[in-house]
Amino acid sequence: MGKIQYTLIKKEANTSARLGKIKTNYGEYDTPMFMPVGTQATVKTLSPEEVKEVNAGIILANTYHLWLRPGEDLIDHAGGLHKFMNWNGPILTDSGGFQVFSLANPKDITEEGVMFKNHLNGDKLFLTPEKSIAIQNKLDSDIAMSFDECPPASASHEYMKNSIERTIRWAARGKAVHNNPNQALFGIIQGGAYQDLREYSAIKTVELDFDGYSIGGVANDHESKEDMYKALDYSLPFVPENKTRYLMGVGEPIDIIEGVIRGIDIFDCVLPTRLARHGHAFTKHGKINLKNSQYKEDFTPVDNTCDCYACKHYSKAYIKHLITADETFGARLLSIHNIRFLIKLTEDIRAAIKENRILAFRDEFVRDYYEK
Amino acid sequence: MGKIQYTLIKKEANTSARLGKIKTNYGEYDTPMFMPVGTQATVKTLSPEEVKEVNAGIILANTYHLWLRPGEDLIDHAGGLHKFMNWNGPILTDSGGFQVFSLANPKDITEEGVMFKNHLNGDKLFLTPEKSIAIQNKLDSDIAMSFDECPPASASHEYMKNSIERTIRWAARGKAVHNNPNQALFGIIQGGAYQDLREYSAIKTVELDFDGYSIGGVANDHESKEDMYKALDYSLPFVPENKTRYLMGVGEPIDIIEGVIRGIDIFDCVLPTRLARHGHAFTKHGKINLKNSQYKEDFTPVDNTCDCYACKHYSKAYIKHLITADETFGARLLSIHNIRFLIKLTEDIRAAIKENRILAFRDEFVRDYYEK
Repeated sequence: MGKIQYTLIKKEANTSARLGKIKTNYGEYDTPMFMPVGTQATVKTLSPEEVKEVNAGIILANTYHLWLRPGEDLIDHAGGLHKFMNWNGPILTDSGGFQVFSLANPKDITEEGVMFKNHLNGDKLFLTPEKSIAIQNKLDSDIAMSFDECPPASASHEYMKNSIERTIRWAARGKAVHNNPNQALFGIIQGGAYQDLREYSAIKTVELDFDGYSIGGVANDHESKEDMYKALDYSLPFVPENKTRYLMGVGEPIDIIEGVIRGIDIFDCVLPTRLARHGHAFTKHGKINLKNSQYKEDFTPVDNTCDCYACKHYSKAYIKHLITADETFGARLLSIHNIRFLIKLTEDIRAAIKENRILAFRDEFVRDYYEK
Repeated sequence: MGKIQYTLIKKEANTSARLGKIKTNYGEYDTPMFMPVGTQATVKTLSPEEVKEVNAGIILANTYHLWLRPGEDLIDHAGGLHKFMNWNGPILTDSGGFQVFSLANPKDITEEGVMFKNHLNGDKLFLTPEKSIAIQNKLDSDIAMSFDECPPASASHEYMKNSIERTIRWAARGKAVHNNPNQALFGIIQGGAYQDLREYSAIKTVELDFDGYSIGGVANDHESKEDMYKALDYSLPFVPENKTRYLMGVGEPIDIIEGVIRGIDIFDCVLPTRLARHGHAFTKHGKINLKNSQYKEDFTPVDNTCDCYACKHYSKAYIKHLITADETFGARLLSIHNIRFLIKLTEDIRAAIKENRILAFRDEFVRDYYEK
């Protein structure tokens, strides 16, 4: 037992892309990897066995949601989150910051922490760096995240500067109280699309010496892809290469590829399961909407190049019927497929890195996916 | 290939209970059995593999729902209902009568058929015995049901008499047009709780020589259990013992046991999956409601005598959390458990029949289930 360990296996010849391995108390996993999201201690609509079957490694759970319901003490009494949800793979918990800041007003952010309203019942709640870490310690996830402010990409340079200074102080406070020897703790680099602030945030966060580093603030607003890529370009040169780099909340296929090219190891996003619930599916040739009438009598699989359970056994026509009839098995089949699609993408990415052809891989992917 | 065949294996010594075997194009199945309901070509929240895993045999699909959406022609083009929904076990389709009569006014019932409103869009629809059979032929289920009127238990003797006369004429019309050599066709005995009408309906329906017989009109109104048992007592003596007997829409454990004691072979009901969606679970000691606060920190399984996937891997506390958080995996776990509970009940019933102790079994079951 002990904390996760990252090992760098290979650097790609032409980019900052890299192959790595994360050793955890629940097995070893190759990076780059995509982590499915199990917000409320369940990857929506799926069983743990189904999540394993699509070859997922780490999954993500949301500290904010589990804090409110069922509560970290209950999960602690259950023997921790793994046992509670019957997941014998590694788990990363976020800090709650992302959820909290979408519910709070700027004036409710103080040096001490954030005051905000419980989205379930309107009660006033207060979250601090210490509290976030204490909750995550009890959840007993394999990777905990530092509590950070997650300002919109549109924030001014002045606001952002004050914000990242505070986030660095919060990171230090969280690290000081962290006390779960089996749990790694990651720092979060913020700073929007400001080069000086990303650099500063990266340097100062790395000085605190975390077990891994994440790039935050790139998926909370409708910032441009350019700004997202800049945030990576500005931050990652300052992150030591023997630590895991995590791009939070990113799940668009092209963003995963671009993130990898810039040196990212792990990604998470609700996109595959959210798209599924709306009847959308990833395919090699772009996203499709199964609600469209063209699929009514289409008895071929969602993606005939896919090896998932849904594509092996079910047609577009059947899944479309399930979605139309509001049968949850439809969202389940598409969730399996969409998660498998992103995980298969990371498998293909790893193969491309091995062969030093990640740039060619990107071009081929984009040609198939976007140019119809 | 060919129609299902029923074989009577053993009659219980002290009651009309019987063991049998139904040979189908998709394997052999022991009776008495419980059939899970897959209204819209899916057993709600479950995969076909999960339905198999709880040891289900035949499943039921609803002709009315599949006729409206996605339509019998589409399912025909898909290669039939089995292929469409990836279910390689036998399927029974109802006739649509039950659904139609809950949507129609009595004045809309004519000799020809029934006029009623599409529950999805309000369109006027007309269903006849010939149309019901034609739809079921295309769905290519293993057992089709005759189109019947399903009057409320409270109907007058005069109304009921006219209704069963018409239902017998409808059964003959349906049989005349039935033309799927791989599909059995069952007749339905109606007559409410009137002894003379149940007898008459049974005799006349049996004269038409169907592949099996069902007892209808016992689960469409809030009739008393006494009336349900009377309907069986009055009808079944007139049904030949070499044919399958089916009690439609019945899934309360005690009613399954009482039905078996009176000679019923197969049962179906939406109860296990509907209860699951509301957070309720069958247990050896009666139904429980997982929404109750007493289960908040109950880390034991729903029923510690149960061998299902949900009871093997999950606690009441976790399932309660999922139900509270509106996560579909909760309804899925309880659906697995509740269906398994009824199927295990029929397995125990079969063992009791073998040992000529079905009456003792009933008493033991009732003692545990109802007397807390």
